[in-house]
Amino acid sequence: MTGPTVSRALVAFICEGRTRELPPDTVQSTQRAIANWLGCTLGARDDDSVQAALRVADALAGPPQASLVGRDRRLDVVNAAWINALAANALDYDDMHVPTLIHPTGAVVGAALALAEHTRASGAQFIRAVVTGIEVECRLGLLLFPQHYDRGWHISATLGTFGAAAAGCVLLSLDPVRTGHALGLAGTQSSGLRAMLPNACKSFNIGKAAASGTLAALLAQAGFDSEPDVLEAKFGLFDVFGWPEDTASVLADLGRHDLITEASLKPYPCGVVIHPVIDACLALAEQEPFDPATVRRITITVHPRTLVLAGRQHPESALTGRFSVFHAAALALTRRAAGLSAFDDTDVHDPVLHALRARMVGVEDPTLAPRQAQVRIEYRDGRTLSQSIEHPSGSPQRPLSDAQLAAKFTELACRALAPEAAARLYEACGRLYHLPDLDALTAQWTRPGPARAAPPDHVQ
Amino acid sequence: MTGPTVSRALVAFICEGRTRELPPDTVQSTQRAIANWLGCTLGARDDDSVQAALRVADALAGPPQASLVGRDRRLDVVNAAWINALAANALDYDDMHVPTLIHPTGAVVGAALALAEHTRASGAQFIRAVVTGIEVECRLGLLLFPQHYDRGWHISATLGTFGAAAAGCVLLSLDPVRTGHALGLAGTQSSGLRAMLPNACKSFNIGKAAASGTLAALLAQAGFDSEPDVLEAKFGLFDVFGWPEDTASVLADLGRHDLITEASLKPYPCGVVIHPVIDACLALAEQEPFDPATVRRITITVHPRTLVLAGRQHPESALTGRFSVFHAAALALTRRAAGLSAFDDTDVHDPVLHALRARMVGVEDPTLAPRQAQVRIEYRDGRTLSQSIEHPSGSPQRPLSDAQLAAKFTELACRALAPEAAARLYEACGRLYHLPDLDALTAQWTRPGPARAAPPDHVQ
Repeated sequence: MTGPTVSRALVAFICEGRTRELPPDTVQSTQRAIANWLGCTLGARDDDSVQAALRVADALAGPPQASLVGRDRRLDVVNAAWINALAANALDYDDMHVPTLIHPTGAVVGAALALAEHTRASGAQFIRAVVTGIEVECRLGLLLFPQHYDRGWHISATLGTFGAAAAGCVLLSLDPVRTGHALGLAGTQSSGLRAMLPNACKSFNIGKAAASGTLAALLAQAGFDSEPDVLEAKFGLFDVFGWPEDTASVLADLGRHDLITEASLKPYPCGVVIHPVIDACLALAEQEPFDPATVRRITITVHPRTLVLAGRQHPESALTGRFSVFHAAALALTRRAAGLSAFDDTDVHDPVLHALRARMVGVEDPTLAPRQAQVRIEYRDGRTLSQSIEHPSGSPQRPLSDAQLAAKFTELACRALAPEAAARLYEACGRLYHLPDLDALTAQWTRPGPARAAPPDHVQ
Repeated sequence: MTGPTVSRALVAFICEGRTRELPPDTVQSTQRAIANWLGCTLGARDDDSVQAALRVADALAGPPQASLVGRDRRLDVVNAAWINALAANALDYDDMHVPTLIHPTGAVVGAALALAEHTRASGAQFIRAVVTGIEVECRLGLLLFPQHYDRGWHISATLGTFGAAAAGCVLLSLDPVRTGHALGLAGTQSSGLRAMLPNACKSFNIGKAAASGTLAALLAQAGFDSEPDVLEAKFGLFDVFGWPEDTASVLADLGRHDLITEASLKPYPCGVVIHPVIDACLALAEQEPFDPATVRRITITVHPRTLVLAGRQHPESALTGRFSVFHAAALALTRRAAGLSAFDDTDVHDPVLHALRARMVGVEDPTLAPRQAQVRIEYRDGRTLSQSIEHPSGSPQRPLSDAQLAAKFTELACRALAPEAAARLYEACGRLYHLPDLDALTAQWTRPGPARAAPPDHVQ
């Protein structure tokens, strides 16, 4: 491209992000996304993988700079960002930017929350940092998707590192030069394999991205130099990840349209590509009582990638059950539910579910978008019933209502907090942009104690 | 390949590494390499980039588990591994496995020293961990080089993460199952761009690899799961980095021949590809007094990669001066020196050096190996003088003598330690395999103080 490089365009955007007036729908989308992130993080607080990671973090962590969501305990900002972002993704219930398959808040809010607490940022500064970080990772995602993802990179992690660093730059008020170095430091830490998606490292990748991004911003602030044009530099990010074809169109409305407004908030704790199929199955199950014994065959017609990502006919574990379109369809049809308890409490080896999944067929249809699906039930008596979905619930076109989001949040948050604290937290998220600091959030899980130590000079 | 996957072969090798009897030349090579690493780390103690990173680490670090080389101060193991490994590479004076361009000890000794101190390992266990880690990263390097490097990956970092994790597995006595998970955790953190080679992030990459590998081993120990076949798994390391053509021959003598014995210890603090040119120039300068004014042209004939990596005619900084074959040649000819003080104290903008570099021509000769070089001086009076080098000094074929290594170590170590302490440290390295613990090393930079805190359970 002629004109400024992408690296420089992002630096300019980040530095403007500190003072930008945000449109009301951006603020509202971000507040909802943060509430959703907090709910997911609270809901996974006692997850095995979170506990294992926390045992390690506890043995390594430094000064009490930032709190662990849902625990009356603080770690240094890098370890806090790591554990919180890891937990946010553990239930596969966090948000999704469908055009790039990036979990937008995952790493970004992990980093931003830790640094905002530590620097005692206002709610508005926290939101600006989150909006900026999400914009950076998702714009990069639009540049690199799908080749980057198809090759095997866990895009929420590789690019989440940039988003987290960008959010950190806003909160640390870095100037353009230091912001460039922060992006370089993010790029050289960018990592995360899709081979991890079926295991606990899926969430570790998100946590690590938050930690690496936080570290990038702190190092840049401390005067550590890097390559500011990290995307376009020789042997830089585009050289190793692949060069985008068209950068101009992706950057054209940068700063004028915020991609956080395009994020989906999941109604179901499973892979987002499965959601239209669940919607279809729930609609079918509402039309008439569903009896598995009467079914001859169920045909699930979806975009080809859906079966690549979620084509497992018979999952072996609760985690892989969240990535089987057939298991999710069986749950939705037989239990008329696909929420947290349906996925968590169901035995994937249940013989009824197994028999039903065995009668399901997945059909690829390249003319469908990933957001679309058709489910067709053929009964033994020859009747058929079918349902198509254009936009899944939770998508920008069919967003969760405030009541649905509140219900999702409450179910998750009450795993870790008393109902009153959960309610206060949700309410505080709704007016976050106007809060002077984050105390109304953190107070729901931390007891007021001795004043925290003054931050060291170089972290302001 | 048929038979076991590379991932599994490495797991088996790592687990045997804990009890393997090491051949005497392996022990000796490793002790020399560790002395060299310690010297480099001490020599860079007060380097600007080390200081900047340390300011950040200090603000983040946890319990005093492992010491910072050359400082009477301890950080948690991950931060100690990070800072020490970063410092080890800062002067570009650390060792090199020429067939893969990996700095073998860099990340591996960073991780192993921190964990060995923390677990109070014996000298022999420390050495076994280092040998094992170096073997893992260099075997992987032989599988992936040069494509991986040519694409833009900083191979000492991407694969150093594996080496550091492997060393950690040995010191934490992980079983095969946990070792597999540790390699998976290493793989998904593997990162580092060659775009960083001309800036301070070059060394950051090595430090980060040490930190990530240490974290991988600790997480695996704590029960955190990953993908054990991380190399061959769908969307695993080989999918993103490229599949090696021939794995069988690279693994054939795994465990029977230790690649640490093939490492080069640098006599000059600059890119290793430059070394044969320096040798040639020093030899020419010894033949007769060198007067720049009499020179018409100097032709430097080298392997093509040498000019890709070090073809900068006129460096702008001390750091980039270490990666200019022309600047190094000019130093060697005019000052008959290419040691630490020659590179550190010389102004790259010195007009005499500039004029001399301007009269130099680099010629690629694909028939030469990277270890070979020819330097030919044409004088204004028509005379010519030339010198060819087959193997650079410091290479396995022309290793540094013990006296040369001791002199190099002393020059470096005395930047941070009193001469007596430096001498005791060097002497301790020479009998490291027989030491009951690492106190004889660490005592040279730490004062005996209150007993260190008992390690937490999960770090034994």
